[in-house]
This record gives sequence, structure tokens and C-alpha cells, in this order.
Amino acid sequence: MSKKTKNQFSDVVDALCRSEHGKLSWRGGRLLPSRDSVAEALELLKSALFPGYFGVSEISTESIHYQVGATLDRVLRILKEQINRGLCFRCGNYGLNCPDCVDKAIGITNSFLERLPKVQHFLAGDVQAAFEGDPAASSTDEAIFCYPGILALTHYRLAHELYELEVPLIPRMITEYAHSVTGIDIHPGARIGENFFIDHGTGVVIGQTCQIGRNVRIYQGVTLGAKSFPLDFQGKPVKGIDRHPVVEDDVVVYSGATILGKVVIGRGAIIGGNVWITEDVPAGARITQSSRPEAG
Amino acid sequence: MSKKTKNQFSDVVDALCRSEHGKLSWRGGRLLPSRDSVAEALELLKSALFPGYFGVSEISTESIHYQVGATLDRVLRILKEQINRGLCFRCGNYGLNCPDCVDKAIGITNSFLERLPKVQHFLAGDVQAAFEGDPAASSTDEAIFCYPGILALTHYRLAHELYELEVPLIPRMITEYAHSVTGIDIHPGARIGENFFIDHGTGVVIGQTCQIGRNVRIYQGVTLGAKSFPLDFQGKPVKGIDRHPVVEDDVVVYSGATILGKVVIGRGAIIGGNVWITEDVPAGARITQSSRPEAG
Amino acid sequence: MSKKTKNQFSDVVDALCRSEHGKLSWRGGRLLPSRDSVAEALELLKSALFPGYFGVSEISTESIHYQVGATLDRVLRILKEQINRGLCFRCGNYGLNCPDCVDKAIGITNSFLERLPKVQHFLAGDVQAAFEGDPAASSTDEAIFCYPGILALTHYRLAHELYELEVPLIPRMITEYAHSVTGIDIHPGARIGENFFIDHGTGVVIGQTCQIGRNVRIYQGVTLGAKSFPLDFQGKPVKGIDRHPVVEDDVVVYSGATILGKVVIGRGAIIGGNVWITEDVPAGARITQSSRPEAG
Amino acid sequence: MSKKTKNQFSDVVDALCRSEHGKLSWRGGRLLPSRDSVAEALELLKSALFPGYFGVSEISTESIHYQVGATLDRVLRILKEQINRGLCFRCGNYGLNCPDCVDKAIGITNSFLERLPKVQHFLAGDVQAAFEGDPAASSTDEAIFCYPGILALTHYRLAHELYELEVPLIPRMITEYAHSVTGIDIHPGARIGENFFIDHGTGVVIGQTCQIGRNVRIYQGVTLGAKSFPLDFQGKPVKGIDRHPVVEDDVVVYSGATILGKVVIGRGAIIGGNVWITEDVPAGARITQSSRPEAG
Amino acid sequence: MSKKTKNQFSDVVDALCRSEHGKLSWRGGRLLPSRDSVAEALELLKSALFPGYFGVSEISTESIHYQVGATLDRVLRILKEQINRGLCFRCGNYGLNCPDCVDKAIGITNSFLERLPKVQHFLAGDVQAAFEGDPAASSTDEAIFCYPGILALTHYRLAHELYELEVPLIPRMITEYAHSVTGIDIHPGARIGENFFIDHGTGVVIGQTCQIGRNVRIYQGVTLGAKSFPLDFQGKPVKGIDRHPVVEDDVVVYSGATILGKVVIGRGAIIGGNVWITEDVPAGARITQSSRPEAG
Amino acid sequence: MSKKTKNQFSDVVDALCRSEHGKLSWRGGRLLPSRDSVAEALELLKSALFPGYFGVSEISTESIHYQVGATLDRVLRILKEQINRGLCFRCGNYGLNCPDCVDKAIGITNSFLERLPKVQHFLAGDVQAAFEGDPAASSTDEAIFCYPGILALTHYRLAHELYELEVPLIPRMITEYAHSVTGIDIHPGARIGENFFIDHGTGVVIGQTCQIGRNVRIYQGVTLGAKSFPLDFQGKPVKGIDRHPVVEDDVVVYSGATILGKVVIGRGAIIGGNVWITEDVPAGARITQSSRPEAG
Repeated sequence: MSKKTKNQFSDVVDALCRSEHGKLSWRGGRLLPSRDSVAEALELLKSALFPGYFGVSEISTESIHYQVGATLDRVLRILKEQINRGLCFRCGNYGLNCPDCVDKAIGITNSFLERLPKVQHFLAGDVQAAFEGDPAASSTDEAIFCYPGILALTHYRLAHELYELEVPLIPRMITEYAHSVTGIDIHPGARIGENFFIDHGTGVVIGQTCQIGRNVRIYQGVTLGAKSFPLDFQGKPVKGIDRHPVVEDDVVVYSGATILGKVVIGRGAIIGGNVWITEDVPAGARITQSSRPEAG
Repeated sequence: MSKKTKNQFSDVVDALCRSEHGKLSWRGGRLLPSRDSVAEALELLKSALFPGYFGVSEISTESIHYQVGATLDRVLRILKEQINRGLCFRCGNYGLNCPDCVDKAIGITNSFLERLPKVQHFLAGDVQAAFEGDPAASSTDEAIFCYPGILALTHYRLAHELYELEVPLIPRMITEYAHSVTGIDIHPGARIGENFFIDHGTGVVIGQTCQIGRNVRIYQGVTLGAKSFPLDFQGKPVKGIDRHPVVEDDVVVYSGATILGKVVIGRGAIIGGNVWITEDVPAGARITQSSRPEAG
Repeated sequence: MSKKTKNQFSDVVDALCRSEHGKLSWRGGRLLPSRDSVAEALELLKSALFPGYFGVSEISTESIHYQVGATLDRVLRILKEQINRGLCFRCGNYGLNCPDCVDKAIGITNSFLERLPKVQHFLAGDVQAAFEGDPAASSTDEAIFCYPGILALTHYRLAHELYELEVPLIPRMITEYAHSVTGIDIHPGARIGENFFIDHGTGVVIGQTCQIGRNVRIYQGVTLGAKSFPLDFQGKPVKGIDRHPVVEDDVVVYSGATILGKVVIGRGAIIGGNVWITEDVPAGARITQSSRPEAG
Repeated sequence: MSKKTKNQFSDVVDALCRSEHGKLSWRGGRLLPSRDSVAEALELLKSALFPGYFGVSEISTESIHYQVGATLDRVLRILKEQINRGLCFRCGNYGLNCPDCVDKAIGITNSFLERLPKVQHFLAGDVQAAFEGDPAASSTDEAIFCYPGILALTHYRLAHELYELEVPLIPRMITEYAHSVTGIDIHPGARIGENFFIDHGTGVVIGQTCQIGRNVRIYQGVTLGAKSFPLDFQGKPVKGIDRHPVVEDDVVVYSGATILGKVVIGRGAIIGGNVWITEDVPAGARITQSSRPEAG
Repeated sequence: MSKKTKNQFSDVVDALCRSEHGKLSWRGGRLLPSRDSVAEALELLKSALFPGYFGVSEISTESIHYQVGATLDRVLRILKEQINRGLCFRCGNYGLNCPDCVDKAIGITNSFLERLPKVQHFLAGDVQAAFEGDPAASSTDEAIFCYPGILALTHYRLAHELYELEVPLIPRMITEYAHSVTGIDIHPGARIGENFFIDHGTGVVIGQTCQIGRNVRIYQGVTLGAKSFPLDFQGKPVKGIDRHPVVEDDVVVYSGATILGKVVIGRGAIIGGNVWITEDVPAGARITQSSRPEAG
Repeated sequence: MSKKTKNQFSDVVDALCRSEHGKLSWRGGRLLPSRDSVAEALELLKSALFPGYFGVSEISTESIHYQVGATLDRVLRILKEQINRGLCFRCGNYGLNCPDCVDKAIGITNSFLERLPKVQHFLAGDVQAAFEGDPAASSTDEAIFCYPGILALTHYRLAHELYELEVPLIPRMITEYAHSVTGIDIHPGARIGENFFIDHGTGVVIGQTCQIGRNVRIYQGVTLGAKSFPLDFQGKPVKGIDRHPVVEDDVVVYSGATILGKVVIGRGAIIGGNVWITEDVPAGARITQSSRPEAG
């Protein structure tokens, strides 16, 4: 390189470093949670929740306790560290490994551990719902092994427990990972009941304050989103307000339907494909698109 | 950890192992097909079908036979093992490496080998269709190299041959892998003719019993799905019934259109975007959304 | 294997190699750009544009210049080689490492380097827009770290610079990679202004000749596509014609809306969900779906 | 490449394949034990024998049983497969996965499992001997963690059990791996008592039919080898005859000493450095090099 | 497995865990230094000391500062953590991450950083000595790139600085790694002057309290060891006493020579091959083996 | 870090970069051969020379030609690049990819290819010699699979051909790699006849200008070295002079023997262990150490 090129190079380096200090408010020395570690913990959790389907496949009756125990042990070590990073990130002392956050991380990790059997129980219901809801499913094994909806729900149900334990950043990382693989975007704050089935799933969006009952079934491209949201006096959105639908038990929502705002979709209602809904729907109703296509 | 923590830990391990034995009907000692091995076979198959585009890139006229031969040799070894696992999984003797399944797996693998030139021929047509159907495509190379539709069809056309050879689980694993990468969900059971082009593709769903003719073109978000399906006396869906559309030659379906049920879309019909169709469409028809948007 | 099997095997090898020489017009000795190398360059670029968020996470004020400098140095080495491959691929002398392409690749790489601070500046605006546009976003850090829209825009903004520098193939590889992860398909040729926000994003399509102004916000499933395109005298699409929407400043497009053709969406217009638009929309207009769903 | 080069290439390929069929008596379809799998089993065994020193380092009192159990479970699966390959290799039916070898492999693996506590007990003694025998050793931890002699003995003691169980090939692979790392070459057939210490170790050779008592200490470059060996009527060495030294309890052999043939080194004898011995040495004797160096 | 096998398995697991608690004095929760992390730090240090020879090979005048800076930054992060582990291991509070050890580790790491230019200076002299001392060396590049003696000295000179800074365990891990690769065993406590050359090197042993002057040359198989060492009242060796040779400037020691005890080899002396020395050698002396071989 | 620490850090970076420019004569932009690429080529070459023993283990009669061909194709691509780097390194234009070196590298690679069948033939003889020379060898398979002597000779015989083709640096890298694994140090310049057997091998040194006949057998710790070497008028060793032993056919050299200088060991001579030889030995002679050990 000529002298000019060399200067150009260091000018760009300086610009990238400087810019960082300004607008993006980068602060030195923070330890963000590690994507790779969180991803590793998730793979391990999946093999503990569905032994034999993920992770070591030749598991036997003799070895299952050892395998699950060793797996959980590793999960806890990873989560303690990553949750600590998440907490330190928020508490403002990040990078200092503050004892408060360490203690809290240990407590949260142990609480999370206690909730795993419940998560497994819910996922067993979701698997059953997938098998029963899809004529193309040949076995519950196939559902566990191949269905993107089960993957998305596994991530969601784990992330939701961490969300409830008020862990920052990590729940969103977990559901976002599932989103990137399945195209199903479930916010970890949503509350979803038993036996939930998402078929195909690409394009599904379930917002932060959604409440979904039992035995609900939805298809690809369904949005359960916010209609609009109040702005504060600075014109910025007010965070954390209930703004998403309540979907009661036994509801079915077909592909491409969009349900926006804090509306209630009553028990057993059926929402047709591509329908656009911004008002309450009574229990048992069948809503379809009024417009029929016409030959051109 | 205190004693309490230790007991808590082993209680959770026990719960996860016990629960498994019940609802999820886990059975010890089964060997499920390995995701990593199937994925490796697919990467190898792609480099054998499109030498120079995938896998070793510096392939020469002198070395191409050696490269393709060595690649196929490895593919066959992997598939024999994985197909055997799939068969054993279904036959009920799983884990026993039953001689019947071994023999069957060898036969199926050899039949699959024989069909590869046909698959390559179909994919060459799909590539040509992509180049001709997309004004943004600068060369067939770009289509092979970058187009999600070609990736999805490559996986589908390979999976479909295994589906026809009655291999369990693996065909679905193959198309689901493409689904996770492209957002295009083609069931391996669908039958798709030559020169098929899917543009962009995210959200496309093509169901198990679809039949698609030659020179068909579809866009992102198109669903070729089931409308509803009969339940058996237990209220569970009857498996394996024809329930998806028949799309004849030269049809175009624009983005977001939804076609449900065992309807026939006649030769050369054009289905507009976001349209919802549950009845037959005659050959040559142009269907568009009747409703026009209105200014608010 | 029996003799028959052996012949069968070599027959398939021969068929796959022969077929290649015909329809797919495979030519020996070409060096296509390497997916893995391009992916590596992108990971490095992300860690140079957002230090501490990607790549090495324990970066400090002392080390940031060294880290960014070393990272960019590696990026330039990779890009010179890959851009050279891309140019050689197009120039017809591929495989020969022609001096012309080498020189051009060096020049392009240096120009690309100079544009990185601008790209960083634009991305800082996009991050701010995401934080302000989504009530669920708890910090700009979360947006950088977890939001698929930011990932897609990072890839797009880098790819667009290479597209403008007339690099073949690689820009498309870069945006297609983001497409596979996020379900957001932005053609590198599109021109997109500051503070652009894509929420959720799955299914979004932004075509090659789109022009998007400042402070625009779009949601999942939005298509900014071509309506139809002129065919040449051979019946093939004419390449490179303006055929996509112009979206002016401050426009919002809700989920599932489809805007096709070279129409203009005027400043500040709001396009409702699932709406289908093929004509100009005046500034400030609010367009919603006329059809209301009806109870069945 | 020119035509000539192409022919040259395939000629070399043919020559390499042909030659193999002759002198090196290569036979198609054999499954040799896998170096990588054996190496993996060894790493796992080390982490089960010395928990916390190898493998997972953050092991706790709560998790140790799960970790060791999961580790052994994986070891057994690997060994069953590799021992089966070793047996099939020798039995002449290799590649056929003969049921006889499968049964035998399972039996051998289970016997090997039972012997692991004994191996651990011996290694604990060797570690203690290293700590006590070397003034530079600061702790037994350092000996486990850093001493090549402990590594070599760990491999040897494991390989010796497999050798006694008449596993072909694998014991030699195991000790040869330690040889390559430490320069200490112990034949798996040697019999070595408790509390054995090898200091530095590079160049140590201990032959197949050696017998070594308790509390023996040897230094780098010591050979316990064969003097000469009887040839059969074809002039080839007769295999399997006792031809190496017997070293009784409490003997010390200093660096570079060479002891050849089936001689007895009596209890408590001390053999000086670089000494050459081919006859019995009485108990308690001190043997040194008679020649003193002279100034030149 | 039968019930018996299952019990056998858990019995072995229990035995391995129990035994650990006894003789090997395993204690839960300790964090030993990580072999992999120390090895990574060494690879990075080599690329900082010899830029272009190790690590990134395409380094340029423009990028060298960035590369070396980024490399050292990573080295410091790794070493702080690993030195902390080493200190905690010794201080008795291990696992508790005690603030004392953290502070000490930071101080030691910074001191180590300051010493790196001195280490580089010494290694430059060693490289020159290798080139001048070996007629087979074609360039100093070859010496840096291929000579085991240079590798062993690089590890030793780095380890020695950590040894002087009283870091536990890690110095020995560093030299032992070089020992395993080169067969050259240099204790990190030895003191070695400038321009030291070890040819071939396999089997060389240099003890903990050796002192070696400038311009010394030694060959393969040379031992600079202890003759005997005093035992304490328990019959165990007294640790840390001077017990190895002093080798003055300009001495040459040929292959296989053994020099034991705290003897002085005077300036410029030449020690012949395979000679055994346990007494002082005057300056300028030439010592050769008196015994001549005889024809048998 | 405090300001002081920051300056200290950049001072060390500057010192390391500066020092490099002086004594170690580092020059920017050179491309040294890559250790990893050379190592990969060697692994591939071993799998082409011994198909089924290294690399893919499930090779069959049907697939062997494809496997060996694909392997050699990859070897040639790697070697062309690495040999080019080696040549450029020496020619003084390094980094410029000079066309001269490219042409030469292609020619050398092709010549090397032609010599591979000869190398395989020699190695087959070495394997036979190992099996016949070692009573502990149970089969030629074990010799190929486990014997360090065979590994060292494989590397040497390949490196020697490159040495004869005047490739810089790479031959030494190849033998040094074997040295690090086996402790056997054979200079690639040595000339070694058929059926050579090295038992155990640790510490063996064979110098650059050695000539070894057929059916020679040597043991661990044998040195075939230089006695002394003439210095030039600057006091530096004259490079490239014959200075190592000539060992005629059928000679045996036992462990630890040292033979120095350009002496001739006559046909069929037997050299005893630990013997020191600096003069010619007549054919058929048996040389042993005259000194007998004495009891102390």
C-alpha cells in the first residue's frame, strides 16, 4: 500500500471507533451475554426435555438419569454466567461482576431449574396437539423431531420462564433464535396455554402482551399484534402497556389472518384466512373474508 | 450447594426422566436418524448435482468424475445407515439393527442412486425457469448460487424420491431443513412438474397431496393448503386423504394468495395476490381481489 | 457390491457429469466466490461496525482501535480475493486470475472501505428508529443484539455499497444470507434512506428498483414488488427496468400489505394491513382494506 | 491440463490402487478401528478416572456422579463399536459385522468397565510416587495435570486391561498415542506393579514381556528391551516369546541405561546412567559405568 | 442391559467417584487452569513475537500494529483469567474467585506484558545462534519456522517469566506442552543466557535449578540433571534445593551426554557425546568418552 | 485501565513491531507456506498411499479409484499453492505471485505426482521390514496403523522427493512434523534404501548427507550425525558439505549408538547399543561397548 492508502485505512478505523462512542453509545468493558453460550444452553435443554430426540441419540434406560443430570449440570453453569451478564448489563455496573448480580443470577437459575418439569409437561401437550391437529403427522416422534412449531414453542416456553424471572435480554435472544429458524416470532412476554398448535408457522407473530388459552390452533402468517400504541410527551411509544389480543380456549385462526389490538377472540371462535380483525369476536363465531375473488 | 439444592437438583432430573416415560412415550435404545448425518448427505448431494457450485469449487474437467464418484460413495454410505435407522424406527424392532431393515435400506439406497440423474434434469429445468422468470436474475449461475427457491426445490426433489421409496421421517427432515433456511415449506409428498419457479418464497406452503403441473410460477406467501379434513370416530384427523389443490400447467399464483382444498386451478390461470380461493378455477381465468382499498 | 451394482454406480456418476456439461452449462476451472469466506467477512464487518456487540465481546477503550483495525485488515484481504473471483466470473476469463480483475478488485475494496463510516452512520439511525418504533424494545442494545430488522439492514447496507461498485454475485449472496436468517428479502439494488424500521420482518420483500425515503416503517409480510414486466422479443423478461414502488419519507406500511409496480406512495401516507396497492397514493393518505370481515 | 496430463493423472491413480492390491494386501470393505473414536474414548476415560482434572473442570460434589456416569456411558458405546471392529478385523469376516464379534465385544466392554476402579487405584499410587520421587513436584495436582509419566501410565494401564482381554490392535493404538505425546513407549503387554514413577521420560522403552515390581523408578532414555530373538525356520522372528527384563520391587534405573534380554534386576538394585546390562543383577546391587570420562 | 448390568454400571460409577474423594484428594468446585486456554494464549503470543511466521501470515507494514495489538489484547484477557485460576488453586480459596487473587493476577499479567520485548530480544538471539550453529539451516526463517529447539526456547522463555512472577502450575503447563511436541524438557525455573542453541533436541532434559551462560550449544539426548537429592526426616525429597549444573558461556555438550548435580562446566569446555559427568569440568577442557568400542 | 496502563500497552506493541523489523529481518507481505495446508496435504497423501488405513476407512473395491482420484486432485491443488509460496519465499519477489514461480510450482507438482507410485512401493517394503523385524508385530496392518517408524518414513519419503525437486522449506516442514510426533528426526536430504526399519525410534537422528543402503535396521536413540564441520572465513559453518555416515546394506545399529562424520559402516556390520563411532567399520564387523558395568 502507498502512504495514502495507509492513512486512509487508519482514518476509517478511527472513524468507526469514534462514531461508536457517540450515537450508538458504546461503553467499554461491558460483557454482553454470549450468543454461542446461550445457544449451547438451549441445545442442552432440548436434550434434557426430549431425551433421545436431541443430543445423544443412543440413550438407554440405564443411562438416562446420568445423561439428563450431566446435561442439566452444564446448563446451570452456563445460565448462571449468562444471566449474571444480563443482570450486570442492566444494573449499570456491568463488567464489574457485582456480587448482587451474582447472587441474583444463582437464585434465578435455581428457580428456572425447578420450572423445567412444568415446561416439559406443557411441551408434551403441544406435541400431542400437533399430532392430532395435522393429518400429515405420522407420529408424535415426527412432531418432536421435525415440526417448526414445536421448536418455536420449546424456545418460547423456556424463554417465558426467564422472562417471568425478570432476566434481561436473554429471553428475547432465545425466541429470536427460534424466529430465525422457523419464521415464527413469539415474544417471550406472551402467555400461552396448554396444547397450542402452530402449523407451518412461517410469518406468525405473537406480541408481548398476548394471552392465549388452551387448545388453540393457528396457521402460517397469522399476526396477533398491536393496533397502535400511545406515545409519551416526547412522541416515543410508552413501553409495557397491554396492547395485544386475548385469544380464548379452543379458537382456530387460519393462515394470514391479522388480529390487532387488545381485542378478545371468544372461546371456540374460528377466524378465516387473510381476515383483518380489530374488534372483539364473540365466542363460537366464524369470521371469514366477505370479499370473494372475481374473475378478471 | 446446600443439601436442599442437591435434592432439588436430583428431583428435577428424576421428574424429567419420569415424565418422559409417560406422555411422550419415550422408549430406550432407539436410534433415530441423525440430523447431522442427513445434513451432511444433503450437502454432498448438492455438490454432486451442481458440481463446482457447492462443495469443492476448483473442480476441473479432469477431476470431475473422481470428485462426483467419491462424493456419491460417501452419500450412499451415510444414507444406508440413516435409512436403516428410519426403517428400524418404524418397524418396531428399533435398536436391534434387524436384518430385514438393513436389506431394505440397501435396496432403497440403490434405487435412490438411480434416480439422481432424473433429479438433476428436473433441477436444471427449475434453474432455467428462475432465470427466465425473474428480471433481476443476471445468470443461471446466480439462480443456482443464491436463489432460495432453487434450494427449496433441490431439497424437495431429493426428499420426494425418498418419500416415494417409503422411507420414514427422513424426507420430512430434508424438506424441513429447507423450510428453516428459506421459509418455503414443501411437503415431500407433493408432486411437482418441470420448470417450477418460486420467487422470494418466504411463507410459501405446499401441502402433502398437492399436484403441480409444468411451468408453474408462484410467489412469496402463497399457500396451497387443505381446507378442512374429515375426523375419524375419535375426532382425530384421518391421515393420508387427498385434500390439497391440483395446479395445472402454466399457472401463475401471485404473492399471498391462498388456495385451499382439493380444487383444480385450470391450465394457464392467473391467481392475483392475497386472493382466497376454495373452489375450482377454469383454465385461462384471471382471478383478482375484488375489494379495492379505500382512502381513509 | 455385485458387478451390476458397480456398473450402475459408474453409470450414475457419468450421467451426473455429462448432464452438467449440457443444460447447466458447467465450465471447468471456474472459481466462484466462496460462501464461507463471504460469511466470514460479514461476521467481521459486523464486529467492526458494532464493536462489543458482535465478535470479541470484552473490548475496552484501550483495545478498540487495535481490534477494529485488525478486523478490517482481515476483511480487506478476504474481500479482495472474493471480489476478484466475482469479477473473473463475469469477465469470461475466470480461473485465469486476470490482472485486470485483480486491479479492479483492489480498487473496489478500497472504495468499499471508505464507505464503511457512512454505513455505520446509517445503521445507527436504523437502530434508533427500531428503539423508538417498538414499544417492546427495552434499549438500543436490545435492538442491535436481537432485532432481525437490524440484521437485515446491516447486510443490505453493506451489500448495497458493493452493488453500487458493480461487484457481481456477492451483493446478492450477502442479502440472501440475511433473507435466510430473517425472512426479510431486500434486493441489494434497492435504495433506502435513513432511519428505516422493519418490525418482525418475516416475509418482507423489497425489490431491485425500489426507492425508500427517510423515517419509513414497515411490518412483517409487506411486499414492495413488481406488478408485471415487459418481455423482450424472445418472450424473456427485459432485465434492469424500473419496476418497483417509490416510498416517500415518513410512510408506514402495515403487515401483509402488497404494493406493486412503479407507483409512488406519497410522504406520510399510512398503508393498512393486507391492503393490495397498484396505483399511486397521495401524500398523507390513509389506505385501509375496505372489506370488513363478516360473521359466518 | 493437457490431454497428456490427464492421462498421467489417471495412470498414477491406477498405479496407487493396483499396488495396494498386491504387496500391502489391501482388502476392500474392512472397517479398521477409528483413531478418532479411540482417542475420544481415551479423553473421556481420563475425565472419569481424574474428574475435574480432565474434561469438564467445574465439577461439583453434586454433579460428579452424573458427570462420571454420562461419561462412562459414552465410553462404553464407543468401545463396543471399536472393539467389535478390532475383533472383526482379526476374525477374517471383517466388514460383515459378524454376530460372534458383536457378542464378544459387548462382553469385553463390560469386563473392561469392571476393571476401571482397579486402574484408578493404581494410577493414584503412580501419582503419589511421582510427587514423592521428584523434588520439583509441588503437588499431586501438578503431577496429574502436567507429568508425561502419568499420561503414559494412564494410557498403558488402560491399554493393558484391553490387552489382557485379548482385544486386537486397540491396546497398541492407545499406548502409541501416549508414545507420540510423551516419547515414552510402553508395550501394552508389559506387566507393571504399583507406584511406578517415570521422570521426564523421553526415550523410555518398555518391551512386551517386561515384568516390573512395586515402587520402581526409572528416568528418561531407559530401555528395557530384548537382546536378540530366535528366528523360525524361515528366518523370521518367533512371535510372543519372553525376551525382556524382570525388574523387581524398589529398583531405580537412571537415565540412558539399557537393560536387554530376559535378565532379573534384583530387589532394590540401583542401575546408573548410560549403563548397558545384559546379565542378571543381584538384589541391592549398585551398578555404575566403570569408564570415567577423561580430559582430551 | 439386564438388571445385573445396570447395578454393575452404577457400582463402577460410585467406585470411581468415591476413590476420588480419598487418595487423590479431589475437592469439588475447584477451577484448574484450562489447558485449551493456555494453549490458545501461547499460539497468540507466538504470533505477536514472530509476526507473519505464526498466526495470520499475510501481515503487512500497515496492519502489523493492529494485528499485534489485537493479539496481545486477547492474550492479556486469557492470562488474567488463567493466572487467577492458578493463584486461587494455590491460595486455598479456590472456586471463590477471591479478590486478592484477582488483583494479583492483574498485576502479574501487566508485569508479564512489559517483559515481552525482552523475551523477543532473547529469541532473536536464539534464532541467530541456530542459523549459525547448524550447517543444514538455510535461513533464519527456516529456524523460526521449523526448528524444535526454537519452539522449546520460545515456550521456556515465556514460562520462565511467569515462573519468576510466581505463577503456579501454568509455567510448567507451558514447558510441558513444548516437551510433548519437541521431546525437549526444560524446567521453567532454569536460567538460560542469550544465544542458546539446541540441535535436534529429542531427549534433552534441563533441570529446575540449572544455570546456563551465553552462546551455549547442546545436542539431542543431553541431560543436565540432579545427581541425588536430600530427603527430609519423612524420607521425602526436600523441595527447591540447588541441585543442577552450572554451564558457563561458550560451552558445547554433544549428544547423549549426562551432567548431574550442582557441578560447574567451565567457560568454553566441550563435553563429548554419551559422556557421564558428576564433577566440575575446568574452563576450556575437552571431555570425551575414554572407552573405545571394540570389534566383537 | 489507567492512562499509564494504556501507554504501557501501546509501548509494548510498538516495541514488538519495531524489534521485528531489525534483527529478525521481518519483511511485510510475504506469504510463507501454511502449516495447516501442508499438514492437510500430508493427511490426504497418506490416505492415497494407504487407502483404508488413513482417511475414509470404509473404502470398497468399487469406490477406491474415485476416492484416490479425488484425494490426489485435492493434494495437487494444495501443493501447487504451497510450493509456489515456498518458491516465492526464496526468489525474493515473494508476495508478488511471480509467474515464474507459478510455472515452476506446476511443473514440480506434476513431477511429484509421477513419483508417488515409487514412494508407495518403497513404503510397502518398509512395512514388510517392520513386520519381519519386530517379534511384537502381529500383522503388517498393525505396522501401518501404529508404528512410529512407518509414519516417520512416510513423511521422509514424501519430503525427500520434494527436496530432490528443490522445493524450499516444505520438505523440512514435513519431516519436522513427523519428528514432533515420533521423536524421529530424518533430514529430507538423506538418501535411504529399501526395507528400512526403525524400532521405537524416539531420539533417532539421521543427518542431511547420510546414505543408507537396503535392509538396514536401527533402534531408538541412534544418531547418524556430523562430527564437526568446517567454518568459513567468517567463522560460520559452510553449508551443504558431505558430513554424515554411509551405512551399507544389511547393517544393524542398536539403541543409543552414535555414529558421527563421513564414515562408512560396511555391509552387514552390527553396531552395539550406546557405542560411539567416529571411524570406518569394516563389513561384517560386530562393534560393542568395551566397558562393562561394575557393581558399586
